[in-house]
Amino acid sequence: MSDKKNFTLAVVPGDGIGPEVTTEALKVLDAVAAQHGVTFERTEYDLGARRWHATGETLPDAELEEIRKHDAILLGAVGDPSVPSGVLERGLLLKLRFTLDHYVNLRPSKIYPSVGSPLADPGEVDFVVIREGTEGPYVGNGGALRVGTPAEIATEVSVNTAYGVERVVRDAFARAQARPRKKLTLVHKNNVLVHAGHLWKRTVDKVAADFPEIAVDYLHVDAATIFLVTDPARFDVIVTDNLFGDIITDLAAAISGGIGLAASGNINPDRTAPSMFEPVHGSAPDIAGQQKADPTAAILSASLLCDHLGLTEAAAAIEAAVTADIAERTGAVRSTAEIGDAITKRAIG
Amino acid sequence: MSDKKNFTLAVVPGDGIGPEVTTEALKVLDAVAAQHGVTFERTEYDLGARRWHATGETLPDAELEEIRKHDAILLGAVGDPSVPSGVLERGLLLKLRFTLDHYVNLRPSKIYPSVGSPLADPGEVDFVVIREGTEGPYVGNGGALRVGTPAEIATEVSVNTAYGVERVVRDAFARAQARPRKKLTLVHKNNVLVHAGHLWKRTVDKVAADFPEIAVDYLHVDAATIFLVTDPARFDVIVTDNLFGDIITDLAAAISGGIGLAASGNINPDRTAPSMFEPVHGSAPDIAGQQKADPTAAILSASLLCDHLGLTEAAAAIEAAVTADIAERTGAVRSTAEIGDAITKRAIG
Ligand SMILES: CC(C)[C@H](C(=O)O)[C@@H](O)C(=O)O
Ligand SMILES: CC(C)[C@H](C(=O)O)[C@@H](O)C(=O)O
Repeated sequence: MSDKKNFTLAVVPGDGIGPEVTTEALKVLDAVAAQHGVTFERTEYDLGARRWHATGETLPDAELEEIRKHDAILLGAVGDPSVPSGVLERGLLLKLRFTLDHYVNLRPSKIYPSVGSPLADPGEVDFVVIREGTEGPYVGNGGALRVGTPAEIATEVSVNTAYGVERVVRDAFARAQARPRKKLTLVHKNNVLVHAGHLWKRTVDKVAADFPEIAVDYLHVDAATIFLVTDPARFDVIVTDNLFGDIITDLAAAISGGIGLAASGNINPDRTAPSMFEPVHGSAPDIAGQQKADPTAAILSASLLCDHLGLTEAAAAIEAAVTADIAERTGAVRSTAEIGDAITKRAIG
Repeated sequence: MSDKKNFTLAVVPGDGIGPEVTTEALKVLDAVAAQHGVTFERTEYDLGARRWHATGETLPDAELEEIRKHDAILLGAVGDPSVPSGVLERGLLLKLRFTLDHYVNLRPSKIYPSVGSPLADPGEVDFVVIREGTEGPYVGNGGALRVGTPAEIATEVSVNTAYGVERVVRDAFARAQARPRKKLTLVHKNNVLVHAGHLWKRTVDKVAADFPEIAVDYLHVDAATIFLVTDPARFDVIVTDNLFGDIITDLAAAISGGIGLAASGNINPDRTAPSMFEPVHGSAPDIAGQQKADPTAAILSASLLCDHLGLTEAAAAIEAAVTADIAERTGAVRSTAEIGDAITKRAIG
């Protein structure tokens, strides 16, 4: 752990409910930071739908280079129906993840007894998905020919490298090693996507030799969705590719009390660039600006941020405050700010 | 409806529990056929793991051409841990689906009240997924370089054509038109897989103009998994690509009482080749040969087969028998054959 006391934070509130939930995450973060004798110096970046409409820009390279100079990034949400689908996702969110080499997309799932689950009998659920963040079908190597004609053809290329797969698999094993249950499940579809799938499988088998204590398991992605519904308690650490990780982490959020609680870290474990923390949920434009959004996922993302920066106690204080708040949720409607205030009070209380 | 009375059936029992469940499906089919004055002349094809170990063959072209001459195909399950992953899936199952142009992969989901669901409060669930069957990431256009070295690169190419997308989308709209709720949901990931996703979205928008009564909706695949857990009753007809369809139909089976009930048809709507009917579940080698498998999904697949051949009453008789059997399930353990016998009795009773 370093003795660093003053951190710089790039903040990208983004679209829809992004700004509201980010405000609450920063409220909690600042309060906890003060208590732990650290500061976060913030620079806000106006990126997202508004900016794109105004200037046509998604994320200019010069701004990306400025963002890169910070210790960490906090992001709200990106995407708006007024912008063609993909423009902001590819041009802003994925550009950040790819350029800053966020190859570990960390997404924990836990069922808080008081929140419950849409599952009748979920058991004790506490697992983490390590989603690869810089390869796979997300690389943007597709193309289209004769668009809009009956002869149109559109392709999407999933690119997977030994370099990219091994580094995320090693990270996942190390995380499994640090957890009590010491179990790792690879999720892929190696009976159909044989080239990518076999690379993943061989890599897991190889790295497993360096982690003899870890019990290793393989599931096809389709079967994994079944177990996430019928027996989610079986999972400890899941490692998977970018697209499968996208799909199963939303499912994981759904079975464990909702997308309002799902936090994530886009992590660069080599620390060659800042990591980025964001709720798993989207921009939810239908409820934006109405103080209806649950900021808990954004607040838990701030906890992951502290953890990544070595502020272990601050991270734990935020998580404990969220856990305590959740434990006493009665179903009464609270505004976004009220939830943020309540969690802040607990975090420094 | 045709007046055809004598049908030819190619039967591929396959691996694991495939033969057991196929036996029961044929038992029910034959009994119902006799009652409705039709016959099924069967040819069994020894394809799968045993054959591959004995001869190295998965599906020789000459045999495929023989199979092609039948009116329909009934398949049990394909895949075994003793065979490298992908060999039988690509060389047998997908070869059948692709060569016989099974572009509509039809997968209905229904929650039978007596069976229940792992969901605490699923509501009334009755939807059908139309999964594209001949394109997308399943085309096998991937490759790998420098395999087994630190410089390995593996790709998977998803190929999507206006031709292929439009025909399955039209089929899905026609099916939605024939259902009371008249709703169609496109599931894709057009904010990331922009080339393929936009082709799908534009095609749905275009075809929608020919079906003004259908309410059309779009969901990203990750969001779709959430709704399948939190509000599955919202769905009527879902149309989606080959890989997303694979994933969400297993999830759909899980939330609606299990993979033991999920039937499917690999349909060639143009009837240029026989359609193929199979349970969604796999070969489950761990319970193979023990009479533990539930043959219901295979039996319901035989009902879909009858329906496709215009034997509407036979199809309805099988479905009604299954519904009646399910309604009286007490949780008592029955063998595969006992379930088949019970359903047969009801189907002709
Ligand atoms: C908004 C979208 C591009 C993004 C993704 O697909 O990664 C989101 O779904 C997520 O999971 O963070
Ligand atoms: C066995 C496998 C190749 C197959 C698929 O992926 O299509 C199966 O999962 C299915 O859903 O029919």
